Formats: sequence, structure tokens, C-alpha cells
Amino acid sequence: MREVRIERGYTAHAEGSVLVSFGQTRVLCTASVDNKVPGFLRGKGEGWVTAEYGMLPRATHTRSDREAARGKQGGRTLEIQRLIGRALRACVDRKALGERTITLDCDVLQADGGTRTAAITGAYVALVDAIRWLQARREITRDPIFGAVAAVSVGVYRGVPVLDLDYAEDSDCDTDMNVVMNDGGGFIELQGTAEGHAFRRSELDGLLALAEAGIAELVLKQREALAG
Amino acid sequence: MREVRIERGYTAHAEGSVLVSFGQTRVLCTASVDNKVPGFLRGKGEGWVTAEYGMLPRATHTRSDREAARGKQGGRTLEIQRLIGRALRACVDRKALGERTITLDCDVLQADGGTRTAAITGAYVALVDAIRWLQARREITRDPIFGAVAAVSVGVYRGVPVLDLDYAEDSDCDTDMNVVMNDGGGFIELQGTAEGHAFRRSELDGLLALAEAGIAELVLKQREALAG
Amino acid sequence: MREVRIERGYTAHAEGSVLVSFGQTRVLCTASVDNKVPGFLRGKGEGWVTAEYGMLPRATHTRSDREAARGKQGGRTLEIQRLIGRALRACVDRKALGERTITLDCDVLQADGGTRTAAITGAYVALVDAIRWLQARREITRDPIFGAVAAVSVGVYRGVPVLDLDYAEDSDCDTDMNVVMNDGGGFIELQGTAEGHAFRRSELDGLLALAEAGIAELVLKQREALAG
Amino acid sequence: MREVRIERGYTAHAEGSVLVSFGQTRVLCTASVDNKVPGFLRGKGEGWVTAEYGMLPRATHTRSDREAARGKQGGRTLEIQRLIGRALRACVDRKALGERTITLDCDVLQADGGTRTAAITGAYVALVDAIRWLQARREITRDPIFGAVAAVSVGVYRGVPVLDLDYAEDSDCDTDMNVVMNDGGGFIELQGTAEGHAFRRSELDGLLALAEAGIAELVLKQREALAG
Amino acid sequence: MREVRIERGYTAHAEGSVLVSFGQTRVLCTASVDNKVPGFLRGKGEGWVTAEYGMLPRATHTRSDREAARGKQGGRTLEIQRLIGRALRACVDRKALGERTITLDCDVLQADGGTRTAAITGAYVALVDAIRWLQARREITRDPIFGAVAAVSVGVYRGVPVLDLDYAEDSDCDTDMNVVMNDGGGFIELQGTAEGHAFRRSELDGLLALAEAGIAELVLKQREALAG
Amino acid sequence: MREVRIERGYTAHAEGSVLVSFGQTRVLCTASVDNKVPGFLRGKGEGWVTAEYGMLPRATHTRSDREAARGKQGGRTLEIQRLIGRALRACVDRKALGERTITLDCDVLQADGGTRTAAITGAYVALVDAIRWLQARREITRDPIFGAVAAVSVGVYRGVPVLDLDYAEDSDCDTDMNVVMNDGGGFIELQGTAEGHAFRRSELDGLLALAEAGIAELVLKQREALAG
Repeated sequence: MREVRIERGYTAHAEGSVLVSFGQTRVLCTASVDNKVPGFLRGKGEGWVTAEYGMLPRATHTRSDREAARGKQGGRTLEIQRLIGRALRACVDRKALGERTITLDCDVLQADGGTRTAAITGAYVALVDAIRWLQARREITRDPIFGAVAAVSVGVYRGVPVLDLDYAEDSDCDTDMNVVMNDGGGFIELQGTAEGHAFRRSELDGLLALAEAGIAELVLKQREALAG
Repeated sequence: MREVRIERGYTAHAEGSVLVSFGQTRVLCTASVDNKVPGFLRGKGEGWVTAEYGMLPRATHTRSDREAARGKQGGRTLEIQRLIGRALRACVDRKALGERTITLDCDVLQADGGTRTAAITGAYVALVDAIRWLQARREITRDPIFGAVAAVSVGVYRGVPVLDLDYAEDSDCDTDMNVVMNDGGGFIELQGTAEGHAFRRSELDGLLALAEAGIAELVLKQREALAG
Repeated sequence: MREVRIERGYTAHAEGSVLVSFGQTRVLCTASVDNKVPGFLRGKGEGWVTAEYGMLPRATHTRSDREAARGKQGGRTLEIQRLIGRALRACVDRKALGERTITLDCDVLQADGGTRTAAITGAYVALVDAIRWLQARREITRDPIFGAVAAVSVGVYRGVPVLDLDYAEDSDCDTDMNVVMNDGGGFIELQGTAEGHAFRRSELDGLLALAEAGIAELVLKQREALAG
Repeated sequence: MREVRIERGYTAHAEGSVLVSFGQTRVLCTASVDNKVPGFLRGKGEGWVTAEYGMLPRATHTRSDREAARGKQGGRTLEIQRLIGRALRACVDRKALGERTITLDCDVLQADGGTRTAAITGAYVALVDAIRWLQARREITRDPIFGAVAAVSVGVYRGVPVLDLDYAEDSDCDTDMNVVMNDGGGFIELQGTAEGHAFRRSELDGLLALAEAGIAELVLKQREALAG
Repeated sequence: MREVRIERGYTAHAEGSVLVSFGQTRVLCTASVDNKVPGFLRGKGEGWVTAEYGMLPRATHTRSDREAARGKQGGRTLEIQRLIGRALRACVDRKALGERTITLDCDVLQADGGTRTAAITGAYVALVDAIRWLQARREITRDPIFGAVAAVSVGVYRGVPVLDLDYAEDSDCDTDMNVVMNDGGGFIELQGTAEGHAFRRSELDGLLALAEAGIAELVLKQREALAG
Repeated sequence: MREVRIERGYTAHAEGSVLVSFGQTRVLCTASVDNKVPGFLRGKGEGWVTAEYGMLPRATHTRSDREAARGKQGGRTLEIQRLIGRALRACVDRKALGERTITLDCDVLQADGGTRTAAITGAYVALVDAIRWLQARREITRDPIFGAVAAVSVGVYRGVPVLDLDYAEDSDCDTDMNVVMNDGGGFIELQGTAEGHAFRRSELDGLLALAEAGIAELVLKQREALAG
């Protein structure tokens, strides 16, 4: 796995603000607390956790169009932000959160593969910071977080299973899988795609074992960061 | 698994046109051949296979907004059509297809869970029909199809692993997984989401076994339909 | 006139669901009841009847762009759905309907000319089914339907007046007219366009006579379907 | 019929520029010549005539939203501009026009009913001026105009057939019909809508006679304006 | 300075309606009163003044696309309408206006440079007319207008400072500045751009002196118009 | 003036990448080289310099909507990016640049007033880095940069002229002016707005003197950064 760094308090205004790096990939994750919930939850005494994802136009090797200028978010963006939201909701007791929304904005400053897994891993820390902020102001009493969430990519690159693919590996791999797990070793989300040939059960088993090891390491990094 | 029906030639104009039913779920899959490719492939002597997905407003229990009227396709729609496209490209030799695009339009006439897996399973048959149409006109000589592709959902519903969830089961299940495989038993795509608690490796193994059995059955149905 | 078929209960969820065929033209018309009205009617004790129209991308000889993907409905679509809505409102006592909206979704599965007239003719039957559903649940007491509505196209094709033009005739005709009438022989909407040379009063008179005969036949078909 | 005024050369830049008034209704119609044609006509040696329609936000009694700010043209706008385009193409020999497009912009400065019929009547004069401009520069040799086109609305208002309805009459009439004719007495477009009760053949006949008389008068006004 | 004309009551429906001409530039400015305020002001007892700007497609030498058809307002349009709104708010006591919005629609019928300065100068007169209309109906008691606002462009054209640039001068000038001032000689807005070489303080001083003189003249024109 | 820091090479992929800070305001400016020019310049042997501006949703005290999600860039964004583009073009010889476009993406990571002036000041350094990159690869021979460009805001805050306003000062100031100058003391852009009362010539003179001093300091910072 590439070097992982988790830097809290990266920007000043957000209730949680984390710059997470997986090697050359750098994602700014902020958590914003709002005392409202979407329409479908109004009056139910439950909160909501959601995510938005963006990539700065020149985070990548060649400049990509600005989605705001094109007038819509692409399918890849929507897919990733839906994934981040689901992943983070999996560790939150929404009753304990109360009628408020926490929005996790994950903006990629520099991309080198694995932006969605870095985003989930960093957004978790930003989310905990926002919860602590609420607790410090005594707006919530019970802790709504019931476990850590982290994510990593694994893949088969030139016949070899690899953990945490960078862009060069990702572009050229046979199988690409994103794994989201909690700190209890449970799976939250699993997304595997055969890029070249279809993959066999034995390959899948190898990739999952690799991912489990990687997640365990990431959960430690998150704990260290939050203790820091 | 619910009763599966695959009806070829459902509409008259498309090069391939299939109505696929998984129980109450009914999806119309058409394959359209166009002698052009997207810009990034122009001049490379390769073809393209892509998909679009839609749901008629009243395919569902309560009417949902028409995406054309809202002015954009939602994240779920984009995610599904990207999945269908990737799945079908996994069984096509794009060099053998030559510089043409086959677009698979998957429109849900009636929804009762599993629309994306039904769409992939039916779109494969429509795709084969379009290829046959090209072969009959001698526009292509080599067969670009190198294996069948089918998809099924599996999930843990009230503690029990279930194959091919209907809407009621899907809405209330703990884990929901869509599996795309080829007829050689290889995995093409795997998307699992923990809806309730995180799922364990043992649960995952059980679900994958169930999916493998289901896919084998679907591949038979596809063969029967294509032989008919 | 081409063979007309009206098949009720084509899909399961909608309060009214009709597949109407005028020859090769096939339109799925669903009626959805919603206990709300648009803002301009709120609190007035009146209901609303409206329509939306769509064409599956490969309903036509060559694939047309999906309006949801293009991000907007074309002028032709808006024009047709406005026409369908006006036509159906012409047979409904909106006071008797009460503060609810019935939306008629008319989606063309296969197109061969006359999709808008088939849509109106089929949507009327779906509308009556939705009203019966409301009556069966005793949500309304008075019958808000005060007459049948049907529509047909007429045109001058190679000098000869033709009833219910198919696509080949429509593309090549001199005059094209859509006529919406009620079962009392009254005109609800008349839209005639000279495609080639301008048409004379005598030609118009001939076309209107043809349309009157066609509508009478369609009203019978509607009655049979509703009695079935 | 209300007082009709046709003022040529209302603005300076356009190849044709006409302010047309039907009573209080005032529409600025400009004709712009462009030496290109839409994609579907390229290389065919034919020209194109098209129209766009807009209404200034405060042309009406209460301010309506600016379509540019809302981000789309409404259905009524699209319907009207399609009608204007069809009407004007009916008097143009597109071969004689050659590979160029004439765009008729019809912008309503003040609305009091009948904006679409005023627009057609005025746009015809602007179109002729643009053709004359082309002829003066010897860019075309044959005259592509083969007849005049004018339009008027008729309706049944409180039981009485009325020619050229103003806003108050239009809002409250039973039947509303827009008639586009050429100077040879041929019909180009006929759009009649029953607002209250369905209308009978006899009513229709009365309205058409009224429209024929009105159109004859409008054609004279156009001739006077063009001779001026 | 080019000839300036200010014609009140140009259209009938708006509470204020002014056609302003700066030479060949003609802008229709209407003021519309609405008894609502935007969300951020609701319940604060204050009013709002805002502006929208548009250009008819053929107001210019060559036809420009209709913004409503393109589906969005361009950056230039947004910039100008924000400027007009700020300029007009600078002369209004929003408490005295009460909870109502006055919208100034500035639509360019013919453009020959200086459309934004003409718009501000004319919109002020339309605004005063709308205020008088409110006073005549005794809806407001205190006069919310506390000074006149006018605007003019100045620039360095071929080395010479010029007041009120027309299109030819504007396209070819070295420095272009728009100045908004009140009748007390105070600056409300200053926007200067070096088109060719950067401009020096001495050039700036010369341009400001020219602008001051021009504004004084415009304020007189406004007074005459309002007295007329 | 607040502490100014200019950090080159902040991200890895762009030809120029600068993080600029004016106090708490932090803007990431990247310069991307593309060997194409917009349509209006094609074949003229000239290059283009343009800018895009964005603000991360939680760069501000309260979270603002993501423009990509809303589907359009706001008026403020468009206004700022047009300003940045004009400012930078003022120091570039576009003939010497040749037929290539340099796009300056200015994305605000943290906002505390003065984001547009920081963006211009930082984008200049990113632009120079991109030019050096072109020179190092010998793609251009002549240096297209003919002077430095920097920008600063000045304002009257509680009666006192202030240089480089932070958010608190900016929100509460009477007059707010953005000044763009070159290193020769020439003005490139001047945008002043009276927020409270209109400002007098004497106030303007004071603000311009303050701005001139600030710009001189910024130009030194740019030189130091580029020498580093």
C-alpha cells in the first residue's frame, strides 16, 4: 500500500476538514453540519449523511472539463458520491444524530488512482470531527458513530494481485475492485469489475484477503489521526 | 428464481428487440446498429457497445418523474446504464465488430425488483440478434461475440439468502448484491451493498454460490431463446 | 383505417394501463392518480388532468436520441403532450373529480404514424379505468367523465384523401390533419397542416367527413374495450 | 378586426425588420440571412427558413419569467415558433433560395391576444425584405417567394363568432382557432381548440368564412406596406 | 455625447415603461412591481430592486443566439444585469419601499455600444414611474427614491478621450470605462478595462472628468423626461 | 496588507501550479497548456489565455451549493473568471504564444475575502511557469510575457481606507474596489462599487494610492516566488 497521510483541520471553516493522501492522490474532505434534513425525512427525528464528490479540472494528467461549466455532473461523479454517502451512512446511528444533515464534500486536488477509496477513508475522519464538534457544543448527547469505515482498491495487475492501485496500475489492470469495510471486519460495499478477462472465484478470494489486510491498516491510520 | 421469459422480435424496427421478464419485472431491450463510433475510437478500427437505461414513469408502484421532463438523468439511471454497457462489452471482440456502435436501450415497462439484472440478461440476446443481422447482411465476417453474459441479484432477506429478489424483498433486505457472469463461470461485475448490518465473508460465499447457480439457469434460457 | 386494438391492464401498477395499437403503431398509456393538484388550482376544489408523451429511442426506423440524455424534451414532444392533455380535459368535469390530478403517460413502444391520435384514443380508456378505480374505492361519487374522446389523422396522399395515415403515407402526404372529437360528433381539436400545396375548402370538407367516420369507429372500439 | 399596422425598417441591422401591430399587440419581426444551412440540408442546394419566438417578460399584464433565466423555452413558445416556421416555409421555393438560412425572430413587445398570428403576418413582410436585400446584392436571381402568407385568429366569444380576438376575448372564448392562409385562398395551417364545449361543423364553417375575410384584408395591408 | 432620448409609457402593461436611446442604441426598460421579496428578505420589512437584461437576437450587426434557446444566460448578460441591479439599489431606501420587489427588465432592441449605460439611465426613469404608481395608489407613503442614478461610458479611442462610445469606437478603443454616478456627483460604480495598453492615472483622471460632465447632462435629460 | 504566500509546484500534473494565500484566503491556481485554440482564433497564428474560477462548497463560513450539482455557474463566478482571463491576457503577446491555449483554473480552497485578487496574483505565477515549461521544451522561442500582473482590493471600512480587505471588512465596507495593475504602474482593470454611500473623487484618489502601493508589494512577492 502506498503511504497514507491523514491531516485534520486542513481548512478553517468546516466542522470537519481532512486532507487525505494515498501516495500522490490527495483529496480534501470537509464535513458540514446543517440543522435540516431532506424532505423525505422531515419530522421523523432522524438525521442524514450525504456526500458530494468533485475533481479539480487539473487534478489529472490532462485537464478535464469543469463539471460546473459543462452544466452537469458526469455519471462517474454521481456514482462515486452515491457510494461515499452509502459507505458513511453505514457507520452512523441516524436516530442519535437527530434532525440534521452532515454533508461530506470530497474534492480531489490531485489524482493518481484510488480517489474514491481515499475519499471514503478521509471523509470518515472528517465526519467524526463534525460529530465531536456537535458533542462539544452539547447539541447531541449519544455518539451516533458505531464503528469506523475505510476503503481500499485491489486489483490484478499483470497477473499479480495488488493493493491500492495507482493510476498507471489502474489503467492497465485486469480486475479492479473497490472494497469498503468497517473496523469489525464486515463488508459494507464491494464493487469488482473485470477489465480484461473475467475473474475466477480463486482470484476474488485472493483480492478480498488483500483488501482485508489493507483496511485493517487504514483503520489504524484513522485512529492515529483522530488521537493526534 | 422467478419465472424468466425472453421474447425476441418484440418490436419491429430495431436490429435486435427483446422483451425480458423476471417475474413481474419487464424490460424492453433493443439493439441499434450505427456505422459510427464515438470520437475517442475514430479511425482505430474498433467498435463500441454502449447502453442507455430508462424507466417509464409508471413502471413503479407510485409514479416517478419523467427524467426527460426533469431535464436530467438521475444518478441511479447513469449508474445502471454504465453497468449494462460494461457488462455487454465484456463479451464482445471490438476489433471483430469493426467501426460501428451498438446501442442497447433498456426501458423498464414494469418494475418489481432486479431491473438491471433483467436488462443485462435481455440485452445480451438483443445484442446477439443485432450481430446476426450484421452477419446476414455480410457486413461482418468474424463473430465478435465470445461468450454469453447474464446477471442476477442475490441478497440476505430476513436472515435467509435469496436469489433474484423482487421489489418487496429488495426493499427490506440486509444485503443486496448484483452479479454479472459469463457462461464460463467467470465474474464480470460484482456489486454488493450492506443495507442493514455489514456482511461477513461466509455470507458473501453463500450469496456467490447462489448467484452462480442462477446465472447458469439464465444462460440456458438465453440459449433456448436464441435457438427458438 | 388500420386495425385498432385496445388492451386494458397491460401493466400492473397504474390505476389505468392501456396498450393501444393503430396498425404497427403501439402506445402504452397509463393513468396515475395523485391526491394533489398544481399550485394554480390549490384550494379551488377542482381536479386536473394532464399528459406526458415520450418515444422510446428505437420506436422509430432509425434510433433517435433519448430526450432524458439530451437534457430536454423537444418541441414536438411538448406540443403533443399539451394536445393530449387538452383533449382529455375536454371530457372531464373537474369539479366532480375533486382535488386530485390524473396524469396520462403515453409512451410510444413502436411508431408507424399517428402516435398522437393513438395516444389520445388509448389514454381516454386508461382515464376511464382510473376513474372507475376511484369510484370502486368510493373516493368520488359523481362520474366526472361526460363523453368519450377519440382522435384520428386524415390526409391527402397522392391526391387521395386517406384515413389514419401510416408513417410512409404521413411522410409523403400533401396535407396532414389531426382531428379530436367527442362521441357526440363535436370537434375538440383540429390541427391541419399543408405539407405540399395549400389545401382548399373542398379538400378540408372531404377530410373532415373522413375523420368523422373514423372517430365513430374508434368510439365503438373504446366502448367494446371498456365493456370487455 | 383590430387596427393593423405594419412598419418596415423598425431596426437598422437586420436584413428585414418589421414592427407589426394588431391593436395593442406589438411584435418585432426581424429576418436574418445566414449563408449556412442546418446539417440535414448541407450540400443539397436548398435553403431553410426558420423562426424563433419570444415574449418580453413584461409584454403581458403580469410579469412572466424570462425564459433565458429559467434555462428553457416553454412548450407554448416552442409550439408557436414551429408554427411560424412552417407557415413561412409554405411560401418559399427553397431551391431558389439556395444554400442559406433565413431566421425570423418574432419578439413580442406588448401582448394583447393574437401574438402568433401577428407574428406570422409581420414575419412575411420581413422575409420579403430580406429576399429583396439578397436580390439587390445579386446573391439570388430567381424570386423564391411564390405567394403571400398571413394569419388571423377567430373564435366564438359569448356565442358570437369574432375575428382577431384580443386578450380579454381569447381568455373567455368557447372556441379559439388560428388560421394561416396564402393570398390564393388556400389553407396552410388550421388550429382550432374547443375551450368550453365542443364545436359543431356549422360553427366551424362560420369561423372559416370569417377568417377568409380577415386574411384577405391582411394580405392587402402587407401589399401596401411592401409598396410603401 | 450622442443624442439621448427618453420616452416614457412606451408599453402599456408595466408600472414603468421607458424606451431609452443613446444614438442608435435603443433599450426598452420596464419596471414591474411585485408584492413579494426574495427568501433572504422575507419578514424583514424591506423591499428589493433587481434587474434582468436581454438582447434581441438581431439587435446586433450579426445575429447572436437566443439565450432562451441556448438554455442559459451568458456571462456578459449576468454581469450586466448584476450591475444594473446594484446601480439602481443605490438610490432606493429599501425600508421605505416596504416588502415588495421592483424588477427592471432591460431589453436591447437595437445595439450600437453603451447598452448597459443606456439601460441604467432608462431604468432609473422606469423605476421612478413605478414608485409614482405605488404612491398614486397610496401603497407607499414615504418616497423611497433618494437621488437620481445615470451611467455613461468613456474611453480612449485612437489616443483621444471619448464620451459615450458607439459600437465602432468601443470595438477599437484602448481603454473602456463604464461610470455610474448619482446626481450629487458621487460615484456608484466604476468599471474600467484596458483593452490595448494599460492606462495611466492621468488618462484615468481625464476619463473621469469626461464622465462627470456626461452624467450631469444625462441627469438633466432624466429630469426633463420625468417632468414631461 | 495581510501576509501573502506564493507556493509553486503545489500539485504535480499541471504545467504551472501555485497555491496563493492572502491571509486566510487560499486559492489553488493551475495553468494547463493545450495545443488548440477556440474556433474564433483558428488559423490566425495566435494563442489564447482564459480562466475558470470555482469555490469549494465549504471554502466559506457556511456551505454553499456545489455549482456542478446545481447545473450552472452563478453570475458571480462567471464575472470573476471573465475578469481573471482579461487580466492575464493583458500581459501576454498572443502572437508569440502561437496557436495554443493556456487555461488558468483558480479554485478557492478557503475564502476570507479577496479571492479574485489572490487568484489573479497567483495565476500570473502559474502562467509564467507554464510558459517556462513551453520554453524548456523549445515549443516557443520568444517570451510571450511582457510584464507582471497583480491585483488587490481596497475599500473604505468604517471611514478608513483599507488595503486587502478580509471577509469581515468586505461585508461591512462602504466602498469596495478591485484593482488590477501591471509592474509598470499601469491600470489593467478597475472595479469599484459603492456599497453604502456613493464615493467622492477624493476617496477614490486615496484608494488608488493605497492600491498602487499594495500592487508594488505583490509584484515583489511574485518575483521572489519565481526566483525561488
